Amino acid sequence: MASVENDNNLSRKEIAYNKLKGLGQDIIDDVSKKNIPVLKVPSRGTSNIVYDDEKRYFVLGDRYGKRSLGNVKQIKKIGQMVYLANFCKDLVQREKTATIREMYYVSEGWGVGFDNQQESNIVGEDIEVTLGVSREDLGLMPEEDGASVYGDLLLREGDLEINALRAGKSGYTISPTIDEVEFVDHNVKRVIAVETMGMFHRMVQEKAYKKFDTLIVGLKGQAARATRRFLKRVNEELNLPVYICNDGDPWGFHIAMVIMSGSAKLAHVNHDLATPNAKFLGVTASDIINYELPTDPLKDIDVLRLKELAKDPRYQDTEWQNEIKKMLKIGKKAEQQAFSKYGLEYVVDTYFPEKLEAME
Amino acid sequence: MASVENDNNLSRKEIAYNKLKGLGQDIIDDVSKKNIPVLKVPSRGTSNIVYDDEKRYFVLGDRYGKRSLGNVKQIKKIGQMVYLANFCKDLVQREKTATIREMYYVSEGWGVGFDNQQESNIVGEDIEVTLGVSREDLGLMPEEDGASVYGDLLLREGDLEINALRAGKSGYTISPTIDEVEFVDHNVKRVIAVETMGMFHRMVQEKAYKKFDTLIVGLKGQAARATRRFLKRVNEELNLPVYICNDGDPWGFHIAMVIMSGSAKLAHVNHDLATPNAKFLGVTASDIINYELPTDPLKDIDVLRLKELAKDPRYQDTEWQNEIKKMLKIGKKAEQQAFSKYGLEYVVDTYFPEKLEAME
Repeated sequence: MASVENDNNLSRKEIAYNKLKGLGQDIIDDVSKKNIPVLKVPSRGTSNIVYDDEKRYFVLGDRYGKRSLGNVKQIKKIGQMVYLANFCKDLVQREKTATIREMYYVSEGWGVGFDNQQESNIVGEDIEVTLGVSREDLGLMPEEDGASVYGDLLLREGDLEINALRAGKSGYTISPTIDEVEFVDHNVKRVIAVETMGMFHRMVQEKAYKKFDTLIVGLKGQAARATRRFLKRVNEELNLPVYICNDGDPWGFHIAMVIMSGSAKLAHVNHDLATPNAKFLGVTASDIINYELPTDPLKDIDVLRLKELAKDPRYQDTEWQNEIKKMLKIGKKAEQQAFSKYGLEYVVDTYFPEKLEAME
Repeated sequence: MASVENDNNLSRKEIAYNKLKGLGQDIIDDVSKKNIPVLKVPSRGTSNIVYDDEKRYFVLGDRYGKRSLGNVKQIKKIGQMVYLANFCKDLVQREKTATIREMYYVSEGWGVGFDNQQESNIVGEDIEVTLGVSREDLGLMPEEDGASVYGDLLLREGDLEINALRAGKSGYTISPTIDEVEFVDHNVKRVIAVETMGMFHRMVQEKAYKKFDTLIVGLKGQAARATRRFLKRVNEELNLPVYICNDGDPWGFHIAMVIMSGSAKLAHVNHDLATPNAKFLGVTASDIINYELPTDPLKDIDVLRLKELAKDPRYQDTEWQNEIKKMLKIGKKAEQQAFSKYGLEYVVDTYFPEKLEAME
């Protein structure tokens, strides 16, 4: 599978291990040849973050900074990077993971002087971009788990096979180590991701997984990295279309957009996280009008945010521009659960079928 | 099992159904006898919330308010209660659930004039206290899922059996419908609940479930109602001791205390949620000193909160009083992940065994 095999059939972890080892080896080689070791660290500054129209997500540009052991001011930073890379190499080798919080505490013993966790986090990101691997491949896990998944997907974690239809009513939880999970088999035609667990449970209860041959994904608000990786993998490895249904407000729009086109802050890993083919199913401003949904008035902060989105390179296609304009015009927003106005089943019996038909 | 069988072997849902039906029947009976229907709603005001020293949690006192159909001002409120009770009866009968958000939207069609969701939430609570059943039994689910559980526990959800050791690295998720879940079998001696998923994953990785024959429960901060219900049930139905390990600060203390002795706000359901026999394992102020943990200074708000806790009836035993005083004296707090100072494995290899031995 694309996720576990890669260049020369090495696993992602093996590639990470080799790159970590290479980082140290290059320094040793330089020193033994009496060259001054220099590290090239791609810049993550805003001027080096570019929206790639073809890829449809943010990427890093070509700019980078040099860190030289010949520069007294940069020695500490290189020392920190080397120690941290060594810690990661050890993690990968021992098949362990650590949170960046744990890493910070472990670093207390190294004597390389991280003043606070923010500093060690940044050095962690430096290593990600320098080596071109994600922190998960380095064994550095986010604290939070990913989304809940319900539906007929068989996964393998090591020796264990899990069917996401048989993991309980709250589904299978995407763990931060999702890249070590293999997709064994499935019997679905699509994926519908929803913003709230309230809607997730509604869909499970109304048997939406059967009615639409779908995986149901409960995002729990802004999608965690592991969730975004999962959605990209099911879309690209299993060729499943991904639909996202969120609250009809700028925040719901943007939860969907970050899944599709990534965030600027994570431009260096968007190639692993963004799912540009995912589609926003709703709730749109048009839905609010067409379905006569119960609404709340837009607050000042909603209006401000909508205007920001209108200028954002990710929202430049006509459909998004129209929906943003329409929402500003009606001055109203609606939650996904607002369909309950027509009864609990309406969203699954009427709204989803109508929208899916229009989109497929 | 205690959870699924009850008075006369009726299930919790059946009891709820009968009580909901009774509420309406009583009103009909009164009307047909030409009596004025009156509902007695136990008061949830602070003066009626009492800490019960014997039960070791907050309960409601004896005070109640009367709502009479003979009082013009109270007719609307009774109408709202009856509509809402009818909605719940329908949910229970159809084996469905709804979030309180969905209920609010559904109520738009009733014409009983809820101005906002807060109002419908309060009427929902009125029904809980009036009938003496929990909202989950009425089919009204909280939005959020409960904790993650990892370890050798076999559960049954309807036709489905799930082993919490085989649900994936992130474990089995406690769903809001936990009371419909049956504990079929287990092979553990205790339960250790931890505040963060970082610590949960650490324990899974270090095989703490094997080393301590334990269930690992990842609370994800303040424990959800479903989590509290789960912990109470494993403690009382399976006779398993429950240990709670949180950050060493007033917020970590209180996450543990709410599991043990409930919250004042939920006094009317603490008999279903509180686990007074659960024990706080750490991180204590003594741990901070004994293990020479990396710390952060207490902030003003931490000090204020510790002083509040010192006066709280739930914290009156000597041990809590000593720990609160000690923390105020050293002026420091520590996170659970701070043990990583001694290596990632230390918390499982050294801290937990030492603490468990001291407590068991």
